[in-house]
Amino acid sequence: MNLPRTFEEVKNSVLREEGETYPGKSLVDMELRPGYDRAKNSMIAHMLAINEAHLLMLIKQEIITKEQGRVILHGLETIDYDVYKRSNYSGEYEDLFFAIESELIRRTNGLGGNLHLGRSRNDMCLCLSRMVIREDMLDLLKELIKVLNTVLRFAQAYKDCIYVVHTHTQHAQPSVLGHYFLGVFEMLVRDVKRLKSAYNQINESPMGAAAITTSGFPLDRKFVSDLIGCDNFIYNAYDAIGNVDFFTETSAAISLAALNLGRVVTDMTLWATEELHMIRVSDGYISTSSIMPQKRNPIALEHLRSNLSLTKGLADSIQLGFLKSPYGDISDYEDAEEPMAQSMKQLRMNYHLFSAVLATLEVDASTLSTRAYESFSVVTEMADELYRRYRIPFRKAHHIVASLVKEAETKKINLKQIDEKLFSSVYERTMGLSFTGDFSSIRESLDPKRFIEKRGVEGGTSSMAMNSMIEKNENSLLEIQKWYDDLTSRLLQANMNRKELVREILAT
Amino acid sequence: MNLPRTFEEVKNSVLREEGETYPGKSLVDMELRPGYDRAKNSMIAHMLAINEAHLLMLIKQEIITKEQGRVILHGLETIDYDVYKRSNYSGEYEDLFFAIESELIRRTNGLGGNLHLGRSRNDMCLCLSRMVIREDMLDLLKELIKVLNTVLRFAQAYKDCIYVVHTHTQHAQPSVLGHYFLGVFEMLVRDVKRLKSAYNQINESPMGAAAITTSGFPLDRKFVSDLIGCDNFIYNAYDAIGNVDFFTETSAAISLAALNLGRVVTDMTLWATEELHMIRVSDGYISTSSIMPQKRNPIALEHLRSNLSLTKGLADSIQLGFLKSPYGDISDYEDAEEPMAQSMKQLRMNYHLFSAVLATLEVDASTLSTRAYESFSVVTEMADELYRRYRIPFRKAHHIVASLVKEAETKKINLKQIDEKLFSSVYERTMGLSFTGDFSSIRESLDPKRFIEKRGVEGGTSSMAMNSMIEKNENSLLEIQKWYDDLTSRLLQANMNRKELVREILAT
Amino acid sequence: MNLPRTFEEVKNSVLREEGETYPGKSLVDMELRPGYDRAKNSMIAHMLAINEAHLLMLIKQEIITKEQGRVILHGLETIDYDVYKRSNYSGEYEDLFFAIESELIRRTNGLGGNLHLGRSRNDMCLCLSRMVIREDMLDLLKELIKVLNTVLRFAQAYKDCIYVVHTHTQHAQPSVLGHYFLGVFEMLVRDVKRLKSAYNQINESPMGAAAITTSGFPLDRKFVSDLIGCDNFIYNAYDAIGNVDFFTETSAAISLAALNLGRVVTDMTLWATEELHMIRVSDGYISTSSIMPQKRNPIALEHLRSNLSLTKGLADSIQLGFLKSPYGDISDYEDAEEPMAQSMKQLRMNYHLFSAVLATLEVDASTLSTRAYESFSVVTEMADELYRRYRIPFRKAHHIVASLVKEAETKKINLKQIDEKLFSSVYERTMGLSFTGDFSSIRESLDPKRFIEKRGVEGGTSSMAMNSMIEKNENSLLEIQKWYDDLTSRLLQANMNRKELVREILAT
Amino acid sequence: MNLPRTFEEVKNSVLREEGETYPGKSLVDMELRPGYDRAKNSMIAHMLAINEAHLLMLIKQEIITKEQGRVILHGLETIDYDVYKRSNYSGEYEDLFFAIESELIRRTNGLGGNLHLGRSRNDMCLCLSRMVIREDMLDLLKELIKVLNTVLRFAQAYKDCIYVVHTHTQHAQPSVLGHYFLGVFEMLVRDVKRLKSAYNQINESPMGAAAITTSGFPLDRKFVSDLIGCDNFIYNAYDAIGNVDFFTETSAAISLAALNLGRVVTDMTLWATEELHMIRVSDGYISTSSIMPQKRNPIALEHLRSNLSLTKGLADSIQLGFLKSPYGDISDYEDAEEPMAQSMKQLRMNYHLFSAVLATLEVDASTLSTRAYESFSVVTEMADELYRRYRIPFRKAHHIVASLVKEAETKKINLKQIDEKLFSSVYERTMGLSFTGDFSSIRESLDPKRFIEKRGVEGGTSSMAMNSMIEKNENSLLEIQKWYDDLTSRLLQANMNRKELVREILAT
Repeated sequence: MNLPRTFEEVKNSVLREEGETYPGKSLVDMELRPGYDRAKNSMIAHMLAINEAHLLMLIKQEIITKEQGRVILHGLETIDYDVYKRSNYSGEYEDLFFAIESELIRRTNGLGGNLHLGRSRNDMCLCLSRMVIREDMLDLLKELIKVLNTVLRFAQAYKDCIYVVHTHTQHAQPSVLGHYFLGVFEMLVRDVKRLKSAYNQINESPMGAAAITTSGFPLDRKFVSDLIGCDNFIYNAYDAIGNVDFFTETSAAISLAALNLGRVVTDMTLWATEELHMIRVSDGYISTSSIMPQKRNPIALEHLRSNLSLTKGLADSIQLGFLKSPYGDISDYEDAEEPMAQSMKQLRMNYHLFSAVLATLEVDASTLSTRAYESFSVVTEMADELYRRYRIPFRKAHHIVASLVKEAETKKINLKQIDEKLFSSVYERTMGLSFTGDFSSIRESLDPKRFIEKRGVEGGTSSMAMNSMIEKNENSLLEIQKWYDDLTSRLLQANMNRKELVREILAT
Repeated sequence: MNLPRTFEEVKNSVLREEGETYPGKSLVDMELRPGYDRAKNSMIAHMLAINEAHLLMLIKQEIITKEQGRVILHGLETIDYDVYKRSNYSGEYEDLFFAIESELIRRTNGLGGNLHLGRSRNDMCLCLSRMVIREDMLDLLKELIKVLNTVLRFAQAYKDCIYVVHTHTQHAQPSVLGHYFLGVFEMLVRDVKRLKSAYNQINESPMGAAAITTSGFPLDRKFVSDLIGCDNFIYNAYDAIGNVDFFTETSAAISLAALNLGRVVTDMTLWATEELHMIRVSDGYISTSSIMPQKRNPIALEHLRSNLSLTKGLADSIQLGFLKSPYGDISDYEDAEEPMAQSMKQLRMNYHLFSAVLATLEVDASTLSTRAYESFSVVTEMADELYRRYRIPFRKAHHIVASLVKEAETKKINLKQIDEKLFSSVYERTMGLSFTGDFSSIRESLDPKRFIEKRGVEGGTSSMAMNSMIEKNENSLLEIQKWYDDLTSRLLQANMNRKELVREILAT
Repeated sequence: MNLPRTFEEVKNSVLREEGETYPGKSLVDMELRPGYDRAKNSMIAHMLAINEAHLLMLIKQEIITKEQGRVILHGLETIDYDVYKRSNYSGEYEDLFFAIESELIRRTNGLGGNLHLGRSRNDMCLCLSRMVIREDMLDLLKELIKVLNTVLRFAQAYKDCIYVVHTHTQHAQPSVLGHYFLGVFEMLVRDVKRLKSAYNQINESPMGAAAITTSGFPLDRKFVSDLIGCDNFIYNAYDAIGNVDFFTETSAAISLAALNLGRVVTDMTLWATEELHMIRVSDGYISTSSIMPQKRNPIALEHLRSNLSLTKGLADSIQLGFLKSPYGDISDYEDAEEPMAQSMKQLRMNYHLFSAVLATLEVDASTLSTRAYESFSVVTEMADELYRRYRIPFRKAHHIVASLVKEAETKKINLKQIDEKLFSSVYERTMGLSFTGDFSSIRESLDPKRFIEKRGVEGGTSSMAMNSMIEKNENSLLEIQKWYDDLTSRLLQANMNRKELVREILAT
Repeated sequence: MNLPRTFEEVKNSVLREEGETYPGKSLVDMELRPGYDRAKNSMIAHMLAINEAHLLMLIKQEIITKEQGRVILHGLETIDYDVYKRSNYSGEYEDLFFAIESELIRRTNGLGGNLHLGRSRNDMCLCLSRMVIREDMLDLLKELIKVLNTVLRFAQAYKDCIYVVHTHTQHAQPSVLGHYFLGVFEMLVRDVKRLKSAYNQINESPMGAAAITTSGFPLDRKFVSDLIGCDNFIYNAYDAIGNVDFFTETSAAISLAALNLGRVVTDMTLWATEELHMIRVSDGYISTSSIMPQKRNPIALEHLRSNLSLTKGLADSIQLGFLKSPYGDISDYEDAEEPMAQSMKQLRMNYHLFSAVLATLEVDASTLSTRAYESFSVVTEMADELYRRYRIPFRKAHHIVASLVKEAETKKINLKQIDEKLFSSVYERTMGLSFTGDFSSIRESLDPKRFIEKRGVEGGTSSMAMNSMIEKNENSLLEIQKWYDDLTSRLLQANMNRKELVREILAT
């Protein structure tokens, strides 16, 4: 490696490579070209919407005359935006905004420059950023709603499927598989809630803040906000520019959503081992081995496991981008746009894959049931029964049963093989008196099905409790869907309103 | 270092050090003792509340008789809990719960064991964890509300204090310092919103979920939830146990709150440099140097800078604790209790220090004003004026002014020294025709005070706009205070209700 | 909640609460008191060492006279440092340094002030910080070396214990349990390597940098560095003060070490499920259930799982503390001292607990062996054998075997039940010609023991390969121990040298 | 939104969208296609290298005959790999490996299947992953070495440029700008060290581990390792597959490197404010404002600020990908390949941009010098002088000077205006006796140039000390360059050796 030995040589070699004028090559490579590409791929329609809305407002407020406005509007509507979608960053203009403004000025004999009255790239580019994230968020929410539906239908389908719940990694109690997934549904609803709250952060308009202090022209900020589908405008102009919570809160919501789904994946990965044999991932989502002929690897679960964590990490990184940044107008947020978009896309793909794996999953119900009938997971109920029928204080009853289980394990006896003799002997040993009750109810208490059905408390496992929960979740889902549908139709309406006003002006 | 050379020797040396029975010494050191200490320091009152509420429910539901209930209740109320606050982990009981239960059983001749009917440490310990975080959250919110007030009063006090806003680290436009802090207020309100949402996650009761499937006894979950001040109970029993969103959402809210405040600290640190000389941190929060006699270090700002980041990191770590953990009953959340408490405490202390620094800050208003009158930050308005009065299209007007500034900088002329001659010459050169208008209005447009006052758009800097914003923020603050006061009085009421029921039972 | 309504009131209420002079109460609470406590608990001996070393250097360099030096040294050696260990922050002195300096000045009739010639709290406090971390690092390394030994002895003990390796969560190939743990050993050695490298960052002396530019006095920086046991001094004085890599590199090394150990814990947690039944965690590290009488929860594994992740997060937070901090003299590092110490302590405790769990683990060798003889995990070898003996190209051989396994699974036949007839029929179907070879060698290839023994390649599973690896790891361990022992004796030697010089001066 | 209402409908709709056989569409979208694209873009040459090396080994070890080997080798060398570079994932083959193997088998009449004897995709794909990261690491190091050179040359150029160092954000002492950058050089050398250590982790060969237990064939692992340029092979076969430290240590090294450079950017951003006016970023790296005609925004610094933090976050995310993953063969690492590559590329681009900004920076030396002569930052030396000449104990001298500075500030007198009268009066007031010494030496001590030149201690600011440091750093740089050049030539040599052996076989 040969390196220049003086600062002068270093400088000259840099100038040769980078050029002497704006923009320096490495700035183009790291920022300006990627920024231009991002803009041309995802912002052109939004830019037009803002231009139209702002212009309509300037006319309404008589900041520019209707005649002028019509000329500029005509220019805006006749520009061939596809040219820009296919264009590459050339350095002639600082960015896509200036490229399009310049074309507008050319087409309007200079008048187009007035479109920028009372605004700045500050409010406008932040608004574009928000509109892009808004769109990605809607895609993400749509996918998550599908996951909710898949989870709910799966839970319905397996609402009677007996299995042994693990707690602390060990057999705990009998339950039904649907109960677990109704829980998952609730967890995902919390993710929806956070994403909704993030959406509300996103869907606010900074327009009218201009550079950071608003403008000397009598702008109507609400009018613009309405026409671009925002729920409201960010009041304080400094905050309108300095506020990056739409990035950070979205990143946090994504991060936690990835974390939550990942917990379910952890469980399913365990369930898919040959030893647990609870589920079988379908052929579409497994891979073979190049060397081990017997292999059937549920790689979809592994990829979900790692990809969700990486997605979380990517979303988290956005917060680092703003840590200790000034509160004010900063370029920093532009660098956060790519990871923001990427992390939303990644999460969406993970949701999609998870839905597909779940919808095509086979459950080995017979193994699950056998295990429930052999494991000691049911014995909480035996202790309860001892209290219920014989009023043996619970802690003492618990003690009798624990001794019984220990005894059975020593004798290598499974649940089914516990008989009155064994029970009586343990009872006598621990209570100091002989068991005179009726063993049959004790015996019955060891039936997993009965255990499950007995739990009719709200949120429990009995058929009735399960049905109530399904209905409750059904309603949650409908509510979420309705919220989503309202949202998207409001956005559509805003677009239609704006286009109608555009037509009116052009028609006069 | 001498190390055993065989596995047998390793094992024996471990057994000697750790003991052969439960609990192993290193488990005690890392988990059981710290857990016991956490419980004795922050959970005893909550444990009593849960015990009372659950017992009252067992009586109401006739799961135990009123007579039995009274005996147990009497036991509960007469235990000397201070003994436990002073006690140390001995290994005799697995944890504080078992220690107290055992005392209760002793005092009630065995009956006390029935207090555990229809519940488990699973739902109970999670409930305790929630009640501790609830309390910390209330302390935190209280402090944050004080910060909001300090920020608002500061903004009011400096609502006319002219200064030059920096954007992209450079002089941008004249504004008033209060405008910045009204923005900060809005940012902090977003933090309040997230903390409120986290509070809602926290204040839900898992009681009645028992181990994870509810119970065969006819529990009334809402009754218990009400008596411990929760807003509702977590419906699905699996979710009641598996749900750790009260940790993770709280951690995210804290993380973002630390990030947001840190951005303000970044600005203030810059403002405190000798070169910017905008603010002077008061004597209580600066340090001297052991070697440099002239030093006056605003270390409070530095500590806020790093401590807020560390607090964010600590809060974030909680999410790692749950990443890829199973969704279900896991011990993992116990390890998260300490960092959760610590991060809430740290943020609270940062809020406190920030308030103190801000409330005692001196602002160098005269330097700020001088700078505003000398910098070119006002010239956006000159371009606007050229459009406003002479209808020069904005982009062209912008170009004239930019040339004028460049010319002035070349000639080392500051803002005040710009005269008609200079303006006219630049005008002529860039427009190709001579300036025939009235220079005085152009000249006037260069007055920072006028610039500020002209920005009367909602969210702008004019006196009227500022006053509206102050009123708006005043209302936000009152609303937040009201929410907080309602909340705390509801909790108080729940406690009073429970204690009333306790008295009734004991009195019968 | 009642809040003051004007800035004046806010300010007055703050001044009442905080005091009007240095130090403000909230600064004391958040920084000065915790800092004082940290100093009194962990820095006093180090402070004395630095004071002695610096003083000896001032004398040697004739910056102060021997007579003066003796007076100051006498003062230093006669101060009762235990007083400070028991003292609380009073605000009289900014910090512990000034408290002790003041006592020294008092005892030496003013001369003691000269001890600070040519140094500053800047270089001195960073040096203290390094010395504290150095000590914690030695404790941590010691514990990790013990883990290495436990892992190696475990691997030795289980070097013949057959089990089926999981890859992608599925049965892959037969192996021996010791092979896995020899891998773990290698992984931990990489952690040692990173911690060593961090140690080298730590053990450098900033002394002599003074504030940040060195001093006008002719200091001997190497002399001081040697006397406090540092390997060298940080050359550039700006860097000596600005360099925080000893924090960040240590944090990264800890973070990765926690991550690595956590992966082993993930495996062991899976192994401890009732379904896999590979290992049984010993009684010292399990807990019971308050409600489920049969439970035996390996909570030590759960706590290791979450605590290691939290430790990683805590270590990571240190890096956030320095993100975007200036490169130079900053207070920020003081806030990082606590999480640094905590994360090192946490990791150490996790190591300790892990060692204890591993050393007392029971392995269910019989279940493992049975599974190996029934699963199809051995069949890679069958394909190899088809090539080896019949030169069937590997990809084709692989295909034959894959078909055979599929057939067996359809017929619900396990590995042992595969006979020549089945083999021949599959062979014929896939190869299009009948099998004329000797089935017995094919049959033999299905013996897991043979599979294992055949893998004599370096790093493989055969007895010989295993023995070589054990020997290799044994040597690594000895080397690491030697490095550690050398290190600690060098530190001891430096202390002895310094004390000897102290005695000499005092004796003259 | 219309959603299917039963599980059956959900499943059918998924199957329609995803297909019923491997690979499911969403797995293709999220994993298989991106993986294929990654492979075709960055792995084909490496795959050929491994294929050649492994084949040469199989021949050498007589696992396959030379004749067979030649046929396969001929196949390998004549495949048109460009076809694959242009190809898209079709689902016909699981991945690129199988696509190419299949072509090889076709061309060699089935023999090509034997190339996979004694290996697996496990060892092979990990090896590919390592080889890709190795290449990215070399590119990154090259760029960092250029940064080192730029920093060193800048420091040389500004080794006499007086300025006031800030500590704790305040004026501290006079120094030279080159001193700061020689410190930066040292900091970056620490980054090099960590990246080197990461490189050593990367450049190890897993080949020969096959699936995870090595193979029954007599492989020569070192031979393969040498032929692909690895420094050694990973001994334990389990570890060869389970070891992901080459990801995690690389991610940590990148994370810290981004953090370190970011600290310098923080300083430079401060220096670029109009108020500090220390540096002027050149035209290539600034932007204008669309609304504020006077603006000149050093956006390159802002982008470096945020992009470096985002790069750190992206690198950190890789560790989350492996947190709590099993130690063994996992697909998870494939998902980490993209963020790994991205974070390395991002850091490289940041280095490039930083170099360009630094090499073209203008320093306002005259402002810096003026400030040094007016600020009180020099007065440490005055206290030193009081001791040096009049043996006033340092702490007392410090006190006199502090009082003097306070007095001067009250009187609004700057450094230059301090005269004997003022000094004497303060001296008398604080010492209680009049000053009888010679004021001229005191006066001289206030010359910043003298201050700087007096600091001749190693690592200090005097010309001699600076020259020594420059020489020292020059040597470090040469050493690093040499290491890099050796490395790259060793890799080249390995390729040449392998190709030579290929030619030999083909020629026979």
